[in-house]
Amino acid sequence: MTLVVRVGAARADWWCEKLQGLLPDIECRSWDDPGDKADVDYAVVWKPPPGGLKTFPNLKCIVSMGAGIDHVLVDPELPAHLPIIRTVGDDLRQRMREYVALHVLRFHRRLPHIQAAQGRREWDQIITPPAPERRVAVLGLGNMGAAVANTLAAIGFDVHGWSRRPKSLEGITCHHGDAGLAELLPQAEILVCLLPLTPATEGILNRDLFAQLPEEACVINVGRGGHLVEEDLIHALDSGHLYGATLDVLHEEPPPEDHPFWTHPKILLTPHIASLIDPEAGAKVIAENIKRFRAGEAVPDLVDLAQGY
Amino acid sequence: MTLVVRVGAARADWWCEKLQGLLPDIECRSWDDPGDKADVDYAVVWKPPPGGLKTFPNLKCIVSMGAGIDHVLVDPELPAHLPIIRTVGDDLRQRMREYVALHVLRFHRRLPHIQAAQGRREWDQIITPPAPERRVAVLGLGNMGAAVANTLAAIGFDVHGWSRRPKSLEGITCHHGDAGLAELLPQAEILVCLLPLTPATEGILNRDLFAQLPEEACVINVGRGGHLVEEDLIHALDSGHLYGATLDVLHEEPPPEDHPFWTHPKILLTPHIASLIDPEAGAKVIAENIKRFRAGEAVPDLVDLAQGY
Repeated sequence: MTLVVRVGAARADWWCEKLQGLLPDIECRSWDDPGDKADVDYAVVWKPPPGGLKTFPNLKCIVSMGAGIDHVLVDPELPAHLPIIRTVGDDLRQRMREYVALHVLRFHRRLPHIQAAQGRREWDQIITPPAPERRVAVLGLGNMGAAVANTLAAIGFDVHGWSRRPKSLEGITCHHGDAGLAELLPQAEILVCLLPLTPATEGILNRDLFAQLPEEACVINVGRGGHLVEEDLIHALDSGHLYGATLDVLHEEPPPEDHPFWTHPKILLTPHIASLIDPEAGAKVIAENIKRFRAGEAVPDLVDLAQGY
Repeated sequence: MTLVVRVGAARADWWCEKLQGLLPDIECRSWDDPGDKADVDYAVVWKPPPGGLKTFPNLKCIVSMGAGIDHVLVDPELPAHLPIIRTVGDDLRQRMREYVALHVLRFHRRLPHIQAAQGRREWDQIITPPAPERRVAVLGLGNMGAAVANTLAAIGFDVHGWSRRPKSLEGITCHHGDAGLAELLPQAEILVCLLPLTPATEGILNRDLFAQLPEEACVINVGRGGHLVEEDLIHALDSGHLYGATLDVLHEEPPPEDHPFWTHPKILLTPHIASLIDPEAGAKVIAENIKRFRAGEAVPDLVDLAQGY
């Protein structure tokens, strides 16, 4: 029984060693040195090369080294019968809660404005409304989205959530479906995208959606780059309709050196660190999930492939 | 029975009108047009001129338009027998919670570093520890400090509090007295000053205190400018010992144009807006406190003058 690990070359050895320590009765090998491929039962992957997973004929399970599985599903030759386990865990949830709280508060208190005033040596005492009068919309109420919505509510914001199907969260006003989105957007002063990337959500952050937001609205994308139509964002910022955007994910990461987002005055770009997997904490979650799967126990992070996330 | 209001000239009329509407059976007049001074029972003030309050011979109570009363106590001719009511209320607490959460998260997630990397078009995926591994120290556990500590704990931080006398707050490790401060400082990665300004706390943020903080510690001052020894802060930042400072209060507000804080790369200066009183909400709290005082009811915001805050 073998487990292969596919991550960036720089970190592959570290991951193999770490998982080996946590799973002593499984042989952990790197993706590039898998031994007999017929022996491989588990593949732990981040952005596996297309066509790669089908070369392991007896694979029992694929583990995504992250909360999203779009980087696996994008493989046109993916063995579609295989179960996929996501990696979430308290650590990733904690980091996402912090990141979103920080960037929602930054827009809420108009920090870009305050910092610009400091640069001009101006003592400009703007009064912003208190958080209970600021409506924040969280798109996506899964594992991450629900934790984020609760944190924002604890800070005091008027938090609304949106998901494809009806959900109920204490202290959060929940909307769902197309009608729910149309109802929510005109009052969403700060919009946070925490959706999974699926054919239904690809390009959802587009000109049409931005136009439905109120004047001076802010957008935070911590979903996937594919959620955003980049040129539509630039248009909505430059027209003055949106106050600003914080982006942790992009179509191409890192973006090319001449990408306009690097220097746009209303865009804060962070290098996909909102909820970067901490190898120590992440390896523990992955090992635990594999142990549960082998033992036939329930794995809460097992993906429902009918939904695609 | 008359009430006089002393605020910045620009806002005086607004406040008089607002308070008059909320207190219809008291005549509300501006500080500069008080009518017969012997008729004045209440003075609602922000930074009253020294010697001014004693010119009202029958004053029953002074109301500070803010949570601090140092701006009143600084008057050497203050009629010392008069009760003083502070203005706190949910609105000011809410704003302070937001402000401190924002600036603690900004340092915690090393946002200055991330923004500098964007400026250089660098995709620098730093990993910061999660909030439960980040120790935040809140100096001052009064009305504001306790609310702030609870909010930081809800986000996930390892929150420690400090006060002069022993206090107990659920989920917060509380320290007190000189020994407690000496115990807390060496592990305080982010230090928040929410102390009242008294002779015992004046200049508490000084070279000696900074030296006890761990390397790369951050300081957030939302107390009063008088808590900080400004040249000691510059020294601690320039030596590399401190990562950064966020200051909402200064000795002189606004600071003179050539003040080094305007342009220091490690200082974020905000114009005393952490918990700026919202006239609408503030007027309601002030009117409610005056009604309670007149009716002989308990006023929770009444200052204990023996403590000086």
